[in-house]
Amino acid sequence: MEKGLLIVLSGPSGTGKGTVCKALLKKHPEIALSVSCTTRPPRAGEVHGKHYFFMDREDFEKRIAEGAFLEYANVFSNFYGTPRGFVEETLAQGKDVLLEIDVQGALQVKESAPDGVFIFLIPPSMEELEKRIRSRATETEEKIRERLGKANAEMSLMDKYDYVIVNDEVDRVVEKIESILTAEKLSVKRRKISNERSDVK
Amino acid sequence: MEKGLLIVLSGPSGTGKGTVCKALLKKHPEIALSVSCTTRPPRAGEVHGKHYFFMDREDFEKRIAEGAFLEYANVFSNFYGTPRGFVEETLAQGKDVLLEIDVQGALQVKESAPDGVFIFLIPPSMEELEKRIRSRATETEEKIRERLGKANAEMSLMDKYDYVIVNDEVDRVVEKIESILTAEKLSVKRRKISNERSDVK
Repeated sequence: MEKGLLIVLSGPSGTGKGTVCKALLKKHPEIALSVSCTTRPPRAGEVHGKHYFFMDREDFEKRIAEGAFLEYANVFSNFYGTPRGFVEETLAQGKDVLLEIDVQGALQVKESAPDGVFIFLIPPSMEELEKRIRSRATETEEKIRERLGKANAEMSLMDKYDYVIVNDEVDRVVEKIESILTAEKLSVKRRKISNERSDVK
Repeated sequence: MEKGLLIVLSGPSGTGKGTVCKALLKKHPEIALSVSCTTRPPRAGEVHGKHYFFMDREDFEKRIAEGAFLEYANVFSNFYGTPRGFVEETLAQGKDVLLEIDVQGALQVKESAPDGVFIFLIPPSMEELEKRIRSRATETEEKIRERLGKANAEMSLMDKYDYVIVNDEVDRVVEKIESILTAEKLSVKRRKISNERSDVK
């Protein structure tokens, strides 16, 4: 069976990854969303196995040691990680897997899964990004400046990705992602990867 | 201005390149078709500059010496070639250029224009290809066997291309080519090429 594609959707915070992800999954329920593990306690309404796999720190660290994460990070003393098992098993079943992740995480994933499709989402302009970040309005001016500085720095990592999409309109972005997935499945590079796999068996 | 894409549509004879080409250009009149030069005399109804650029042998050989062809071949004592000037000028204007060409020609083009998008069209099966070649019914059994043998050998050159499309249904093939063009235009690899070009200017 042909392996699924690992679709890594990333970009600076405020570029609208979450919205695009939701729209893509709604239009393509056949794509599986990768669910992260975390040590942070569940918030109201969050469902184990849907929003996150919740686990304690000891369990998480054991899994790190076992190499069970495609990537992980420690944010404000809480661990977050992408479980390798789910991703690999789902891909092996021929299903595509979507990973929505920040820039640092995506680059970590690229180390362990270089044949993923790495898509970088950018705002129409840095002014628009500032507007979007400010419109959330839950943060102090200092925090906002910090986020903007980080976003600016992350923009320079675009070159590490396979594709760049300007997030001007969600539906158009989803169509572009559809085209990318179609093209990737027609690419000789992927035929070679999958032929090599069948040769091994 | 962003450079256009050079789309090279190729594959063994009998895979339906011509039909796909026609359908793609009908749907996308903004894509320019590359017109070949030839030394063979025009047939009834053939228009200079539309079907071919007709020229005498001396003129053709002069152009070979000048490096004016992206590729050329001598078939039954007639020369055929793809003029480099038209392709490069049209691409520079930001227009995509389509080149419909046999396998040997495509590989020659790849030498001089490696950033083209090389698409290999294959028949749904070798049985189907044989049916298609036989249905033309204008050739002797020996000629048919020769064509089939050549097609078989050419199938192994698929790996030199960027994409492979099974020609099961023309409209679907056209849609796949559309996806490939969209994806290529979003690829970081092409952004880099076009940035390097603007850096030089």
